[in-house]
Amino acid sequence: MNKTIIQMLIDSDSEYVSGQNISDKLGITRAAVWKRISKLKELGFEIESVTKKGYKLISYPDILNKELIEIGMKSDFIGHSVEVLESVDSTNDYAKKKAKELVDGSVIISLEQVKGKGRRGRSFHSGKGDGIYLSIILKPGFEPTKAPFITSIAGAALVNTFNKFNIQTKIKWPNDVLINGKKVAGILTEMSADMEFIEYIVLGVGINVSGLEFPSELKNIATSLKLEGYDVKKLSIIWQFIYEFELLYNLYLNENTSEVVNILRNNSSVLGKQINVHYMNQIESAIAVDINNQGALIIKTQEGEVKELSSGEISIR
Amino acid sequence: MNKTIIQMLIDSDSEYVSGQNISDKLGITRAAVWKRISKLKELGFEIESVTKKGYKLISYPDILNKELIEIGMKSDFIGHSVEVLESVDSTNDYAKKKAKELVDGSVIISLEQVKGKGRRGRSFHSGKGDGIYLSIILKPGFEPTKAPFITSIAGAALVNTFNKFNIQTKIKWPNDVLINGKKVAGILTEMSADMEFIEYIVLGVGINVSGLEFPSELKNIATSLKLEGYDVKKLSIIWQFIYEFELLYNLYLNENTSEVVNILRNNSSVLGKQINVHYMNQIESAIAVDINNQGALIIKTQEGEVKELSSGEISIR
Repeated sequence: MNKTIIQMLIDSDSEYVSGQNISDKLGITRAAVWKRISKLKELGFEIESVTKKGYKLISYPDILNKELIEIGMKSDFIGHSVEVLESVDSTNDYAKKKAKELVDGSVIISLEQVKGKGRRGRSFHSGKGDGIYLSIILKPGFEPTKAPFITSIAGAALVNTFNKFNIQTKIKWPNDVLINGKKVAGILTEMSADMEFIEYIVLGVGINVSGLEFPSELKNIATSLKLEGYDVKKLSIIWQFIYEFELLYNLYLNENTSEVVNILRNNSSVLGKQINVHYMNQIESAIAVDINNQGALIIKTQEGEVKELSSGEISIR
Repeated sequence: MNKTIIQMLIDSDSEYVSGQNISDKLGITRAAVWKRISKLKELGFEIESVTKKGYKLISYPDILNKELIEIGMKSDFIGHSVEVLESVDSTNDYAKKKAKELVDGSVIISLEQVKGKGRRGRSFHSGKGDGIYLSIILKPGFEPTKAPFITSIAGAALVNTFNKFNIQTKIKWPNDVLINGKKVAGILTEMSADMEFIEYIVLGVGINVSGLEFPSELKNIATSLKLEGYDVKKLSIIWQFIYEFELLYNLYLNENTSEVVNILRNNSSVLGKQINVHYMNQIESAIAVDINNQGALIIKTQEGEVKELSSGEISIR
C-alpha cells in the first residue's frame, strides 16, 4: 500500500492536501482519489473537502479492526494481511499455530490477551483495550543464529516509532522499552526452525498505550503512554511501528546491522551501568560496556573478564 | 522400565534365564515374573519354560504396536510414552503439532510417511512397513545454540545401535548414516524456541530396514539393511536405538560431549576427504579436517582458510 492517502493527510499536519497532489503521488486518477476518500469517510475518518484547496483530515477513530488497520499501512509487505481478534491466550501462541498457512509479514492483533507472555514463561499484563498486542510472522529463510537480532530490530523500531510522536524512550537490552525507567513495551521473539533454516519467526510486541492501572506488583516497574502523559492513537502507533520495523528489517535482510545497532547504542538504558546478569542458577555482577554489530551486549565482569551476551536477562544495580 | 525381561531374554542369546535371576535383577517376586512372562506370550513372544532351567526366548514378532514397543524399552524416560500411527504426513510434523501436550521423551512412530521430510525441504522415502520412521520430543530447556548437537547424538546412537547388530556404518556429517557409501538412515532435528530457551526439540529419525526397492533416482544413493544382507527386527532396533540415544543424551545434559564426538570422529565417512560445502547460492571446495567438541566440522578451504561449520550440507568429491 506504500504511502497511503491517510498518511498523506496525517503528515500534512492539518493543512489541505490537493487531490492533484494525491493523484500524482499515488499514480491514480482524481476520480480514484475521490473514491478512496469516500471509503475513508465510511470507515469513520472525518475529512473536510474544500474546492481548489483539497482535503483536510479533521479526526479519525482509534478502533482496531482489520479494514482500518490495513488501509493505513505504509509498509511494503508487512501488515498487508492483518487478523484482529477480540481476545486470545497470547498473539504469539496464536500466530505460531497459524504460521504455516499465513504469508510472510502477516500480523495478528488482539484487543486483549488472557495469557500474555514475556520471556522465561513470565506473563505480560494485557488488559482489554489498554494496549497494542501484536505478533508478526516472518519467514526470512536464514539460519537460526540470526534470529536474536530480530528482537533488536523490533526494539530499535519501537524507539523510532515513539520518537515520531515526540516520546523519549530507552531500550533495556535486549527486549524492553522504558519511559522514565518503567517498562512501556516488551518484545518476545520465538521461532520454529531446523538446524540450518528458520521455518518461521513470530515476533511479539506488547505496548502499554492507554491503561491507567496495573496490578500492584507491576506498579513500580510498568507504565503506559497515557500514564506518562502521552495521548497517541493505537492505530497511528501500529502504522508507524510496522513501517519502521519493515525499514530496519529490510536492511537486515541485506546484512546491514549498523543502523539498528546505532539506535540500540544511542538509546540504551544499560550501557555504562553496573548490572547483574541472570543466568539459569546464578547471578554475575558486571558493567555493560557496549553493544556489538550483532546486537550482543558486551559486558566486563568484576574479575575483568570481557564477555559477549547474545541474549539473556540483566538487571541494573 | 529399565532392564526389561525381554532384554534379559534377548541378551541371554538362546540360553535359559532362571526365574530367580529375573526376579533378583528386577526386584520383583517370582510370581510377578511369571505374570509378566504370560503377558509377553499373549503379545506374541514365544517363550519356552523348563522347570529348574527357567525361560528361553524362541522367537518374537516384529509388529510395531504401542504395547509391544513400550514393553521392550530399556530406557529410563525416553519412549515411555509411545504413539504408533498407521500413516502420517511426517512424524516430525505430527510431533510438532502435539509437542506442547506430550511429555518430554515421547516417541511418535509411523508405519508409513506420505511426506517424509529430509533437510532443506527434501523428501525422505518412507514406504509402508519398509522402515522405522520415528520422532522423539525433547524438552531440555537449554538455549537454541545447543540444539544442533542433538543431531550428532542421534548419529552416534545410530552407529552404536547398528554395531550392536554387527553392522558397520559410517556417519556422513552431520545427519546421514551410510553402509557401503549408501544412505541407510537420516536425521532431521527441528525446534521451537525463543531466543534463550528451547520450548521443544523434535528429533526425527528414518531408518531403511526391510525395503527392497527405491525410486530410481535413489537407487545409487540409498540402501536398506535388508539389501545389504542384514536381517534385524524393527522392534529390536527401536529398543536399542532409544537406549543408546538416551545414554548419550544424558551425557550431553551433563555437558559431556566427548563420547559422542569420539564416535563421530571414529566413524566419519568424510574426515580427511576432499569435499564440497554447499551454501545457499554457492559451493566451496575444502578438506574435512576434524570434528570439534561441539560436533562442528572443521574444514580447510583451497585457499588454506580454516572454517568451522556448525551445520550445513556437504558432498564428497
